Amino acid sequence: MASEPKDSPANNPGLQATPDEATRGYIMQQTMFRIKDPKASLDFYSRVLGMSLLKRLDFPEMKFSLYFLGYDDPASAPTNSVDRTVWTFGRKATIELTHNWGTESDPEFKGYHNGNSEPRCFGHIGITVDDTYKVCERFESLGVEFVKKPDDGKMKGIAFIKDPDGYWIEIFDLKTIGTVTADAS
Amino acid sequence: MASEPKDSPANNPGLQATPDEATRGYIMQQTMFRIKDPKASLDFYSRVLGMSLLKRLDFPEMKFSLYFLGYDDPASAPTNSVDRTVWTFGRKATIELTHNWGTESDPEFKGYHNGNSEPRCFGHIGITVDDTYKVCERFESLGVEFVKKPDDGKMKGIAFIKDPDGYWIEIFDLKTIGTVTADAS
Repeated sequence: MASEPKDSPANNPGLQATPDEATRGYIMQQTMFRIKDPKASLDFYSRVLGMSLLKRLDFPEMKFSLYFLGYDDPASAPTNSVDRTVWTFGRKATIELTHNWGTESDPEFKGYHNGNSEPRCFGHIGITVDDTYKVCERFESLGVEFVKKPDDGKMKGIAFIKDPDGYWIEIFDLKTIGTVTADAS
Repeated sequence: MASEPKDSPANNPGLQATPDEATRGYIMQQTMFRIKDPKASLDFYSRVLGMSLLKRLDFPEMKFSLYFLGYDDPASAPTNSVDRTVWTFGRKATIELTHNWGTESDPEFKGYHNGNSEPRCFGHIGITVDDTYKVCERFESLGVEFVKKPDDGKMKGIAFIKDPDGYWIEIFDLKTIGTVTADAS
């Protein structure tokens, strides 16, 4: 009998082999993080990373707005605003940017923590692209800030960039991710 | 001429109307956060939330492991370990749990920051379910810790739970999300 793959429940204490029927249909819909300035973030995520704004929700009483962005085509969204919200929450893999009004012009505002220094927390989101090197050349031409360029360090072909708030975004492609992580797999 | 929807580029400074051709095919693949104890987190995300372990990567020299979980069926993954990595990085909407070895048994380890107190950062991930009330009854029976039960506060039908590290997970369904956010939409 062949040994179990390393990813199997037998090799991962705590892991349940089969999802409970009660969880059928769940989707991983959103990742929320806070942003200082929607103009800068909308520009970055749409122009640099190619996402679209799926839905904006405004809460004037609590003075914040939520921007849901992702790789779905908003042309396929319903025109009715409430229906568009429902449509958005049915999409996988969106980012939800929370803007507390006023931070963009508040000289006292110190910015948000990116989670990669103490106290550590969330680390990054990651985007699969077609060709990391080609994509990073475009990012460089657009003036994007890098944490790690694809040829820095040992993990060749993997890059990290920063968004306007300093959050990290990992960039990788399917041509190199398998070989560069082969020893770890 | 009808006014532009609130989500349109005309109403959202910085937003680019059409994604650059260079970004075609990008996918929002992962959200990474750090965990103290993989046994507790694998149990929670597989048993409570119904995710599967898509791939584990181990980096013994740097003493950490990465656990990629999501709602894809690992039965459809390739059996070869490197191919399975590539398959995983081609899936949308995974979570990547980073385990720095030893934290699970280190009495000095103080845990990770969840981002929702100072210094604020990432806030939560969000899962779309079929029925928030029914799902939260199951969570209660499983002893899951709540930040907000569905009937707490003004946003009825939306809940927040905590994972074993204290990270927040928002729970909502498509039957109620439109009406409860109607004023904001």
